Amino acid sequence: MLEAFAFRLIATDAAARRGEIATPHGLVRTPAFMPVGTQATVKGLRPADVRAAGADIVLANTYHLMLRPGAERVARLGGLHRFMNWPHPILTDSGGFQVMSLAALRKVTPHGVTFRSHLDGTMLELTPERAIETQALLGADISMQLDECVRLPATRAEIDRGVRLSLAWAERSKRAFAGADPGRALFGIVQGGDDEASRNESAKGLVDIGFHGYAIGGLAVGEPQEVMLAMIDEVAPVLPRGCPRYLMGVGTPDDLLQAVARGIDMFDCVMPTRNGRHGVAFTRFGPINLRNARHADDARPLDAESACAAARDYSRAYLHHLMKANEVLGGTLLSTVNIAYYQQLMQGARDAIEAGCFADFRQHIEAGWRQGDIPLAGK
Amino acid sequence: MLEAFAFRLIATDAAARRGEIATPHGLVRTPAFMPVGTQATVKGLRPADVRAAGADIVLANTYHLMLRPGAERVARLGGLHRFMNWPHPILTDSGGFQVMSLAALRKVTPHGVTFRSHLDGTMLELTPERAIETQALLGADISMQLDECVRLPATRAEIDRGVRLSLAWAERSKRAFAGADPGRALFGIVQGGDDEASRNESAKGLVDIGFHGYAIGGLAVGEPQEVMLAMIDEVAPVLPRGCPRYLMGVGTPDDLLQAVARGIDMFDCVMPTRNGRHGVAFTRFGPINLRNARHADDARPLDAESACAAARDYSRAYLHHLMKANEVLGGTLLSTVNIAYYQQLMQGARDAIEAGCFADFRQHIEAGWRQGDIPLAGK
Repeated sequence: MLEAFAFRLIATDAAARRGEIATPHGLVRTPAFMPVGTQATVKGLRPADVRAAGADIVLANTYHLMLRPGAERVARLGGLHRFMNWPHPILTDSGGFQVMSLAALRKVTPHGVTFRSHLDGTMLELTPERAIETQALLGADISMQLDECVRLPATRAEIDRGVRLSLAWAERSKRAFAGADPGRALFGIVQGGDDEASRNESAKGLVDIGFHGYAIGGLAVGEPQEVMLAMIDEVAPVLPRGCPRYLMGVGTPDDLLQAVARGIDMFDCVMPTRNGRHGVAFTRFGPINLRNARHADDARPLDAESACAAARDYSRAYLHHLMKANEVLGGTLLSTVNIAYYQQLMQGARDAIEAGCFADFRQHIEAGWRQGDIPLAGK
Repeated sequence: MLEAFAFRLIATDAAARRGEIATPHGLVRTPAFMPVGTQATVKGLRPADVRAAGADIVLANTYHLMLRPGAERVARLGGLHRFMNWPHPILTDSGGFQVMSLAALRKVTPHGVTFRSHLDGTMLELTPERAIETQALLGADISMQLDECVRLPATRAEIDRGVRLSLAWAERSKRAFAGADPGRALFGIVQGGDDEASRNESAKGLVDIGFHGYAIGGLAVGEPQEVMLAMIDEVAPVLPRGCPRYLMGVGTPDDLLQAVARGIDMFDCVMPTRNGRHGVAFTRFGPINLRNARHADDARPLDAESACAAARDYSRAYLHHLMKANEVLGGTLLSTVNIAYYQQLMQGARDAIEAGCFADFRQHIEAGWRQGDIPLAGK
């Protein structure tokens, strides 16, 4: 068992970074994309298949798990790694974002958030201390502070109030985290909406408190990509070089490369799995919507050169058929294709950063996306 | 490519038979259980996983596939084996049963069945000739005659009318099948409801026409098990020893062993996959319903001694959680467990028949089911 959480910067290429995080359950190669295992399952996929697709770490949602099956129950059963048969690194969020987006009757006070469970209506309370305790019961390798995500658009005053509350909760989170098992880590979350000065204040405040890593939250919530990138540009230079930076809830393949270029080390997003379930494959040709009628007679695979078997072994016509027929296998195969593609993208980025050619790598990838899918001959 | 369909009887033990069917896409060890791949997919499972669970052959439903994606389309795409990435034996049914159970406005005449597609309301016709042609377009290794399943309860007159119609359609099916690619096979289907004499007449009539194999249809439709077994007892001695006997739509693990004891060689049933999706696992302890609250805190796997990884690697508590959380992985894992259990049961039967100890094997298996699940200590 590892004695300390560690982040090692292996290489840089301009602002892009290639690194490695050591956790009690193994290594995470960065930049890293974390598939989302919301309810202790990356939807439809066996853990071994998630691993085989290249993932080093998954994210699990504390909000869902505290409601069902319950954090104490997971602890009694030996912890989340064992529960979900994923004996590799796990990052849990604090529950804060989903309390705000999923629960009813949410009331935020300086003490915490009271809310009504969307499952059975029970009134519950989530405080920084309870969020830390819950994540400890789950046994997460990396935990997140409870923060407040202020909904955009918001006034400067609302944004700053949120920044101050999140910083107060960051302090309380760190205090509650003292005494955590060796090797477990706690990340702070930079808030500040779409305001550079607020983002700056939030980041500096967190660095003063001191965390193992720093997340940038409250983005990828509908704002234009350039706003998100501007906030990263504002915040990244403030964060310590020797700690990982985690851009929460991001994103498209393009978002990922843009953010890697700006010094982000970690990502999580439901997009590859959610879009997969809805029939969209992410590929080197860009996104392909298998529900489109143009695939109905296409015997070609998604990508004959993919390292992912699901992208090679099934025709587009078959994938189209599965989606139209509402067959589970369709969503599962496309989720696998997408997780694998995201992992291949990150692996390509890591290799390119180490080789000092990340800009060329990006250009090459983007050129493939721009060229788009090759139509079936004669169509 | 095999030049002729062949069935080889390897061993017998009382009325039970151990055999081997040779088809253009490989061998089928009998007794064999065929997972059902209704819409060209065994729901939720990758073909490789179905194969790894021990299946030699799957069934695909002609009714569904003729409607979507269409048999001509499947043929253009290279046939069903390629379409669904299952390069092993495939048996297709004729579409007759599901036309009767799924389509609207069904009208049966001596010519065939006209019906309205449940998908888009198109009026279509299924005749013995069209059923043979459709299955040829799909490229099935084993095809079934179009038959009429008379709904029970029915009068003797209705049953006999159905027997005569099915025999007339059997003759037309065989004529339409002439000229099929070498190695492809056609089975006749014994009807006759729950009447011994009708069953006898149907079986003899089919044998006179002559098929590669003989199915017993129109059972496992709600009648008591003893009625089903009585019909098998009536029919099996009439059927040629050197041809496979296929009991359609059967059944529970107990049904399978009872029918194997009576000389049945092949089975198909949605039960392992459908029940899996609904949270029920078939195990050597009998069926276990993972939705039951007694599993919520049970850290034990379904069966630590199972050859199936899904039955070993996940706790009952986790499987329970997945089902309660409506997570796709739950149904997929339990479907895998169940297909594997059914295949293990058939493998055990085959081995026992070869070793001349099938009766002992049955007793041992049944004792395990009778003993039932071992409760969690202290509960």
